[in-house]
Amino acid sequence: MNPALPTAPAPFHLCGIAGSLRSASFNRALLRAAQETAPAHLTIAVFDLAPLPPYDADLEAAGAPEAVAALQRAIRRADALLIATPEYNYGIPGVLKNALDWASRPPRDSALAGKPTAIMGASPGFGGTARAQAMLRMVLAGTHTPALLGPEVYVAHANDKFDDAGRLTDEPTREHLRKFLLAFEEWALGQGKR
Amino acid sequence: MNPALPTAPAPFHLCGIAGSLRSASFNRALLRAAQETAPAHLTIAVFDLAPLPPYDADLEAAGAPEAVAALQRAIRRADALLIATPEYNYGIPGVLKNALDWASRPPRDSALAGKPTAIMGASPGFGGTARAQAMLRMVLAGTHTPALLGPEVYVAHANDKFDDAGRLTDEPTREHLRKFLLAFEEWALGQGKR
Amino acid sequence: MNPALPTAPAPFHLCGIAGSLRSASFNRALLRAAQETAPAHLTIAVFDLAPLPPYDADLEAAGAPEAVAALQRAIRRADALLIATPEYNYGIPGVLKNALDWASRPPRDSALAGKPTAIMGASPGFGGTARAQAMLRMVLAGTHTPALLGPEVYVAHANDKFDDAGRLTDEPTREHLRKFLLAFEEWALGQGKR
Amino acid sequence: MNPALPTAPAPFHLCGIAGSLRSASFNRALLRAAQETAPAHLTIAVFDLAPLPPYDADLEAAGAPEAVAALQRAIRRADALLIATPEYNYGIPGVLKNALDWASRPPRDSALAGKPTAIMGASPGFGGTARAQAMLRMVLAGTHTPALLGPEVYVAHANDKFDDAGRLTDEPTREHLRKFLLAFEEWALGQGKR
Repeated sequence: MNPALPTAPAPFHLCGIAGSLRSASFNRALLRAAQETAPAHLTIAVFDLAPLPPYDADLEAAGAPEAVAALQRAIRRADALLIATPEYNYGIPGVLKNALDWASRPPRDSALAGKPTAIMGASPGFGGTARAQAMLRMVLAGTHTPALLGPEVYVAHANDKFDDAGRLTDEPTREHLRKFLLAFEEWALGQGKR
Repeated sequence: MNPALPTAPAPFHLCGIAGSLRSASFNRALLRAAQETAPAHLTIAVFDLAPLPPYDADLEAAGAPEAVAALQRAIRRADALLIATPEYNYGIPGVLKNALDWASRPPRDSALAGKPTAIMGASPGFGGTARAQAMLRMVLAGTHTPALLGPEVYVAHANDKFDDAGRLTDEPTREHLRKFLLAFEEWALGQGKR
Repeated sequence: MNPALPTAPAPFHLCGIAGSLRSASFNRALLRAAQETAPAHLTIAVFDLAPLPPYDADLEAAGAPEAVAALQRAIRRADALLIATPEYNYGIPGVLKNALDWASRPPRDSALAGKPTAIMGASPGFGGTARAQAMLRMVLAGTHTPALLGPEVYVAHANDKFDDAGRLTDEPTREHLRKFLLAFEEWALGQGKR
Repeated sequence: MNPALPTAPAPFHLCGIAGSLRSASFNRALLRAAQETAPAHLTIAVFDLAPLPPYDADLEAAGAPEAVAALQRAIRRADALLIATPEYNYGIPGVLKNALDWASRPPRDSALAGKPTAIMGASPGFGGTARAQAMLRMVLAGTHTPALLGPEVYVAHANDKFDDAGRLTDEPTREHLRKFLLAFEEWALGQGKR
């Protein structure tokens, strides 16, 4: 190999999930902004949580539904997991917790255990989902999922930062997002190494 | 009225919800045990969370589904709310959070705001759902729902306390449950009074 | 009594504590602002946490220090407790938790059990101490202390709302504080009644 | 070097802190048990939190006291941090939070940022400090301190597992502790690597 030529970074692939099902959701839009700002080698495939049934151990015992298997596959195949969460009632949405409940099953073969994960959040209010992100970290401790400590992404006053088409137009936030993704990749590549 | 005759206590009606959908769930069984041990004037109608769709603001805008309206009615009509929660991944199940997310909508007319609520939990492990109950209290602060501080109900090692038919056979726990319900009623009747 | 004359409201007395020891602390300043905006019948005596030693069960067994006894007396004599907390490391300060640890001793005669309490918080950042307040609520559940659910007081960007002398100059915040105190009184008077 | 001879493991040094100041504290005893069960190359120096003053930014501005500088040095010099926490009022002791508040100062040069940390806890009750450990994880997210996800150490019913001299006599717990320390070392050595 010619050492004068820079090597392209290895592909790094994220599974992205948003905690809101609303089509105009700020957190879905935040995942799209992450896709836009990411460098070429860093890809994000968004997995839609809408088809997941409510977790039910009887349903699981009868054979997990295809949507659940698809979620688990999407997480396993990705190098890392990126979660964008709104804040509902000072916590993460039931929809997101339900997805994590399914993804963690069965415990002896959890798709979440050991999977490097980063958290973002956007909300119309002042708090930028700070409490939801704290709660999400508690849950990720329960699933034994390493979570990026920083940089963190709290998008407060989201109405002022996305346009009507759901595009993140706030330049400082776009730049922060880009740095966040690169730091996430760097950290995730180091997890589990010695 | 003849003062020599004791007056019967006024009926006190609870809406009960369990965070697990599994038919043999310990927490559904705990609600049944509460029904069995409650005095005659204290009734508990269990609302099954299974038919609730995942919360979706678009769905809500198009008109909340009947199951959601039924949950909100059940809570509004009850004097108080009784929640039995398992612990999944150090938190409350997504299924339970999803029900609370729906029940709190819309914020200006939330069925949860101000509704006196008590928490119980059963789990096979040692912790008796302590972390899930702590998380549930965080959420109930978000919904502005007053929650009974004590007595508390943590049923650890649930396998040893329920029989195969799902009957709570542990006498100290049954007795504690009965006292808990009476204390809950007493406290709930005082909420909102001056 | 002449029914045409309005009766003066009964005196209502709060014990106020701030989680920060810094003399120019925003949260000490917030307590002063509460004193200024409160109606005449609502008084707030601030208890300074500085003299409290670190909680040590051996010290307690040898006889709790006078500063601890003074804190417990101040809380017992007050109609209600008002806590102003900064956010340190996503939580309440150790100084504040230490005060609550002492105040809750011994459990069979805790000054905190049943004492109506309200929470405020100010911080220079965007979050307004949202996470610290959530953590404080978890602790107050542990001490069986009823906590006002709302209105809530989150003073974000505190640098813009207090002047150099530590006076709260932001009028909307002052007005919110006044309403908060009246709602707190109303709620506290109802606690424990039936 | 003779490849037939096994190489001794490199020394691995932990700074250990206990959240309780009581001389007969279960959590101090748990740290001693960790010292006893650790392999020879893994050493634990316990730092006593008793001399730390309450955190006060004015005191800090005047020059942090020697006890604080000593804590920061002890953490910096250690390869990793081991925290043993009791549960007070559903959370970590104020004494422990106060130590973390000091150790995190100033933020631009925090002794806690990036320092691999593991958590243990012992309590006389059934919960084994589960809630305190969850709260500690929230705080460690705030200090950007990576925390071992598992194995976890919850010593419930501590009265039955330590003798009167404070020696951990429960063999399964001793064995678990030994495995925990080795897993902690393995994980800590991998942190920050790529």
